[in-house]
Amino acid sequence: LTPTGAAGGADPVPPTIAWAGDHVRLVDQRRLPDELRILEVRTVDQLCDAIADLAVRGAPALGAAGAMGVALAVIGGHPGSEAGAALIATRPTAVNLAWGVRRALAAADPVAEAEVVAAADVAVNRAMGNAGLELVGPGASVLTHCNTGSLACVGWGTALGVVRAAHEAGRRPSVWVAETRPLLQGSRLTAWELGRLGIPHRIVVDAAAASLMAAGRVDLVMVGADRVAVNGDVANKVGTYAHAVAAHHHGVPFYVVAPTSTWDASCPDGAAIPIERRPPHEVLELAGTRVAPAESEAENPAFDVTPAGLVTAWVTELGVHRAPPGP
Amino acid sequence: LTPTGAAGGADPVPPTIAWAGDHVRLVDQRRLPDELRILEVRTVDQLCDAIADLAVRGAPALGAAGAMGVALAVIGGHPGSEAGAALIATRPTAVNLAWGVRRALAAADPVAEAEVVAAADVAVNRAMGNAGLELVGPGASVLTHCNTGSLACVGWGTALGVVRAAHEAGRRPSVWVAETRPLLQGSRLTAWELGRLGIPHRIVVDAAAASLMAAGRVDLVMVGADRVAVNGDVANKVGTYAHAVAAHHHGVPFYVVAPTSTWDASCPDGAAIPIERRPPHEVLELAGTRVAPAESEAENPAFDVTPAGLVTAWVTELGVHRAPPGP
Repeated sequence: LTPTGAAGGADPVPPTIAWAGDHVRLVDQRRLPDELRILEVRTVDQLCDAIADLAVRGAPALGAAGAMGVALAVIGGHPGSEAGAALIATRPTAVNLAWGVRRALAAADPVAEAEVVAAADVAVNRAMGNAGLELVGPGASVLTHCNTGSLACVGWGTALGVVRAAHEAGRRPSVWVAETRPLLQGSRLTAWELGRLGIPHRIVVDAAAASLMAAGRVDLVMVGADRVAVNGDVANKVGTYAHAVAAHHHGVPFYVVAPTSTWDASCPDGAAIPIERRPPHEVLELAGTRVAPAESEAENPAFDVTPAGLVTAWVTELGVHRAPPGP
Repeated sequence: LTPTGAAGGADPVPPTIAWAGDHVRLVDQRRLPDELRILEVRTVDQLCDAIADLAVRGAPALGAAGAMGVALAVIGGHPGSEAGAALIATRPTAVNLAWGVRRALAAADPVAEAEVVAAADVAVNRAMGNAGLELVGPGASVLTHCNTGSLACVGWGTALGVVRAAHEAGRRPSVWVAETRPLLQGSRLTAWELGRLGIPHRIVVDAAAASLMAAGRVDLVMVGADRVAVNGDVANKVGTYAHAVAAHHHGVPFYVVAPTSTWDASCPDGAAIPIERRPPHEVLELAGTRVAPAESEAENPAFDVTPAGLVTAWVTELGVHRAPPGP
């Protein structure tokens, strides 16, 4: 797996997704933390399946995947626009996917553009890490949700990238990892990354976050985003809104870390963001075994919307914004 | 399994725990919803294991278990007080356990007293169901957490007992079942009971509750309690507090349904309630398989405390209390 702008072989977390000349190589996130396995993807259909099944996920990683998907189509002699439409349809909330597709479609050389998108992602994330550093004081206890680390990006990370920057700056942050039901991106992926990075962390069930705040054990909440509306409303993994409400109730700062590519100039507010509904079995089963009664049904929205009023600040590669930066 | 005051064989949910002449019979709740299996318990040690491992759980059911445990000791020729101390130590937050033990120890005939405690539990729960009926309007959408149905009691239920009373009164309530991580008492037990009772329900991950409230899809929250302090602070399954904070934020009424045996006159407020810490593996594993990295740790408080200020009303067998009724 070619390092694409990350620290290379020495990086404790490998690049999530990379262009390999004529195909895409990506970390199969369904197999973590048990196995670090690389998936080789050679067609747009394979990539669509990998995205729909969350082998690759996370807003910035999906931006790179969108661009690489168009590149796959073009080198295979297929129309990039058809590939782009199919890719975008896999995850309706994730705006970076459409952004990456558009970038590649608009470029003279979609393959080169896909590589630029991937390399730029790491640089953007490092810039966010540096920008957000001011929000993480010495010894800060950070609550996070889902996975916003290197695995959600090409490399480095968004919200977890800020924590990593604070760790590398010697600020000794520690992390409360909300497990993130139903698919446990927190306990599977975030905990794995934090372990590799040597950052102290402890996993809790999602619903324990509010009582940790009540006990004064959370200094700040830091999350990523799948789409941010012009007014600053944030769509992110289901459960984010519950943490935001709890943070507001307890006076705990709530920060959203997402590159400008996650801001959607065509969305005036959160009500305009489509929320992906995922299959009920993700809630009703554990590790492939049904836990709920056979007749019971579930509702499984993948995301929720946190209104801008509950966000203390947004971090982009441009800096820390105490008000939405505007389109 | 002898019906102990419940509707008997016609009841869609069998008695949770019953005294059977010289031993205790209880529904093994670890096996639900896959299998309705009765566990025969003949010694105090067996009963302590069953309680610690949550084969039987729920505040009122533990009250009956406490009394029956003393009865088991006495008919075996052992000191009731030693048995009582061992039983109480199994679940430090659950005050009904101590209450049931004390009832049996204070009685001339602990066996007869255990049967009285069990029979009275169903009557008390039915009284709470009738009292709470005024809180559930026609077609109300009720969010609940953990299991507070028949399985949490000898029969009928506390919070879910109010929903059942509303259902039987023709009010057509429906229920959002919070799955209740880590042990899924919601998706395993509450969904099973609601299915048997024919009450419409839908399971969600715990962290989705806040966004359901934001969407106006929750009319009221109704939960049980493991201990209520004199000032009305409520210890209940971890995650209850998160729902209470969200309900407060959205102006959704938040009701606690618990018999007076769950109110602890020796606890002035929530800070005095001991919170049981359960093993980390409950969070780190799914269905016996590790999901988190081998090195990662978890914090697993079984309960949290909801301050009285977030409770709209408390329901006991004496009625609906808009302020704590006092010791």
